[in-house]
Amino acid sequence: MAVVKHPTGNPTVLRQLRYGNVERVLQVLRRQGPSSRADVATATGLSRTTLSGIVGQLLADGVVTEEPAGPPSGRGRPVHRLTLNPRSAQAVGIEVGRERITVAIANAAHEVTAFAGTRHAQRSGAPEQAGAALELLRDLAAREGIDLAGLGGVGIGTPGPGDTTGGPGDTTGSTSPAAGVPRHRQAIADAVSEALDVSVLADNNTRLAALGEAIWGAARGAGDALHLTLSYGVGGGLVAGGLLFRGAQGAAGELGHISVDAEGPRCWCGGHGCLEQVAAVPALLRAAGRRSWERFTEAFAARADTERAVADRAAHAVGRALAAASSTANPRRIVLGGEVAELGPDFLGRVEEAFRRYTATRVHRGVELVPAALGERSGALGALALVFHESPLLAGYATAEAVAPEEDTATHAS
Amino acid sequence: MAVVKHPTGNPTVLRQLRYGNVERVLQVLRRQGPSSRADVATATGLSRTTLSGIVGQLLADGVVTEEPAGPPSGRGRPVHRLTLNPRSAQAVGIEVGRERITVAIANAAHEVTAFAGTRHAQRSGAPEQAGAALELLRDLAAREGIDLAGLGGVGIGTPGPGDTTGGPGDTTGSTSPAAGVPRHRQAIADAVSEALDVSVLADNNTRLAALGEAIWGAARGAGDALHLTLSYGVGGGLVAGGLLFRGAQGAAGELGHISVDAEGPRCWCGGHGCLEQVAAVPALLRAAGRRSWERFTEAFAARADTERAVADRAAHAVGRALAAASSTANPRRIVLGGEVAELGPDFLGRVEEAFRRYTATRVHRGVELVPAALGERSGALGALALVFHESPLLAGYATAEAVAPEEDTATHAS
Repeated sequence: MAVVKHPTGNPTVLRQLRYGNVERVLQVLRRQGPSSRADVATATGLSRTTLSGIVGQLLADGVVTEEPAGPPSGRGRPVHRLTLNPRSAQAVGIEVGRERITVAIANAAHEVTAFAGTRHAQRSGAPEQAGAALELLRDLAAREGIDLAGLGGVGIGTPGPGDTTGGPGDTTGSTSPAAGVPRHRQAIADAVSEALDVSVLADNNTRLAALGEAIWGAARGAGDALHLTLSYGVGGGLVAGGLLFRGAQGAAGELGHISVDAEGPRCWCGGHGCLEQVAAVPALLRAAGRRSWERFTEAFAARADTERAVADRAAHAVGRALAAASSTANPRRIVLGGEVAELGPDFLGRVEEAFRRYTATRVHRGVELVPAALGERSGALGALALVFHESPLLAGYATAEAVAPEEDTATHAS
Repeated sequence: MAVVKHPTGNPTVLRQLRYGNVERVLQVLRRQGPSSRADVATATGLSRTTLSGIVGQLLADGVVTEEPAGPPSGRGRPVHRLTLNPRSAQAVGIEVGRERITVAIANAAHEVTAFAGTRHAQRSGAPEQAGAALELLRDLAAREGIDLAGLGGVGIGTPGPGDTTGGPGDTTGSTSPAAGVPRHRQAIADAVSEALDVSVLADNNTRLAALGEAIWGAARGAGDALHLTLSYGVGGGLVAGGLLFRGAQGAAGELGHISVDAEGPRCWCGGHGCLEQVAAVPALLRAAGRRSWERFTEAFAARADTERAVADRAAHAVGRALAAASSTANPRRIVLGGEVAELGPDFLGRVEEAFRRYTATRVHRGVELVPAALGERSGALGALALVFHESPLLAGYATAEAVAPEEDTATHAS
């Protein structure tokens, strides 16, 4: 099965329409527990035909089960009830990071039911990494008694640029599915898609971490959020209305390449004086004349002058970049993750100071700066969220709507 | 009738659902011309009940008409056809700017059918300004033979901050309708709403100019766009997927308050070294020691050293701010408007030079910088677009969906 890549830009109204009806059915089952078809129809306002198509698809995929609710009371057929199948995996998220592979499994209620991580050999290629991820996933499922047969989609995050499709002439996002995806990511996605016979969505892992934090972590409930990861590189993500916002070339939220120094040197990205050049781990090590991040953090904790000064300079730059990003996107919350952010409250306090100095009062009084909450789980959880947000729009449950208009087909399917 | 203000954040799926069905019906009539109900049902895939409710509302509002399509051929009732009423105003956009009032009228096909503008006394209050706008509108409608009776909504743009509702604790956008709207804007909106007995949406006029350019002007078809107006203040707007993106406090796209100078003085907004402090008309005049913008532009055109140097410095700052904004939002197009942008290609060339210097190659190679195209019409057209995008989600046509589930009511209404 071919890899289904996310479309450029935001979901259209039509796709949200389709997703909306399936989602409404699942929401009713999540909130009300086991329910009859009649109850679900009442609660959702969906027509019998549409509901029948959706339920048929959900039953076929093992996402829900339908059983008689006890012995029949009085005459007539016993009432049947629809129940979410807690043991059926609906989505899997995988992060193949710099050093670790992590996987997370969620059921149809969007509950994360299992998580596992392992180190991998850094120099191994895409096939080995895909194999290691699949092994980790299958072991986890077996250990937890989770059925992978009804899987609706897999999300994968890897380092490297996000989507780079499109250009001035392309406003439709209709470029070929694989265009612009880094080859390494595509190779992993292809291998996983083939092995599990399921659609795969893939994106940059830092951006997915932003989405993970927005759904399950430090930006939960914030709606509009910015995410900044200060690690060996500096990456970020922009979440708008709870969804990943990609922009024209899929580069929205790449806050590491905001210029913080007009006189700064050229960056590998093509810009000059980028935040990454002063606030990533290698930049701090270079400025402090150190080789080991562990030594740097020890010296910082011991309040060594050099490390403090270097970290302050970085924090000031981070605050200025976040200020510019917030004047553009006006987030409700800003999440800071990665090794440099983990220097702790002293560092984050300096970031916040600079951030507030360079932001309009009406913007900064409504923004919270918070540390990331999900740690190493953020990438895999974000990959899960990617599936929930975007996969059903393209594959799987979208077909439930497609059959609805034809009464016979729909009835037959249920 | 009370003023209906836009909600904070982006439309929810549910609201898009409602708007979507009405919009689908209108789209079919726009594309196919006069059509029978059966044709519309086929083309939209809507149920008879839902379609009946929508058509009933559209007929009641005079947005569409229904007439027999010629004499009956053979037996049975003659076929009736639904037609968009080109003489019925569906929406009105009004800008009450610093010096001018402008109004635009559009029909249900989203075609702008009339436009007019007039100067107003700068020191007059909200009631006088509302009165002048209403007079301008009524004269225009009378002159063009446009019927205002079926009006679905009015959009109004005025200077001053956008929506300021919300805060860290508010993720629902459910604050009271009028919270955070500047008093002057609210007063104008109330007066217009009462006089025309119609819902009114209001926002900052520069932000609406961004939306106007996105729908009808220089950012048309771009989807994701940034807008920057360099005038007596510096304002902007962010358009995402063709819709206005507001952010948590409604301050998204306020690019005039991106800090471009770490050592810069405090700005009225609370920030430091803001773009507005170096790139607005008053800043350029001050730096060049001039009092009149006309004299400044003459000297600039004559290549006077001082004015060229001052404009270059401003252009560099504009380019840097746009670079930071683009690293955050990754627009496909950036539109520059206002008196300073109207200095022309030399100025814009310098902006672009700095912009490209401080942006990642993969971002800037996909972005076009273009001058604004709508001139004084942008604000009123943006106010129109605001109605088309957001008003039906809250009032008017949303009710067509609300009656649809009850067969009797819906049938009766048609």
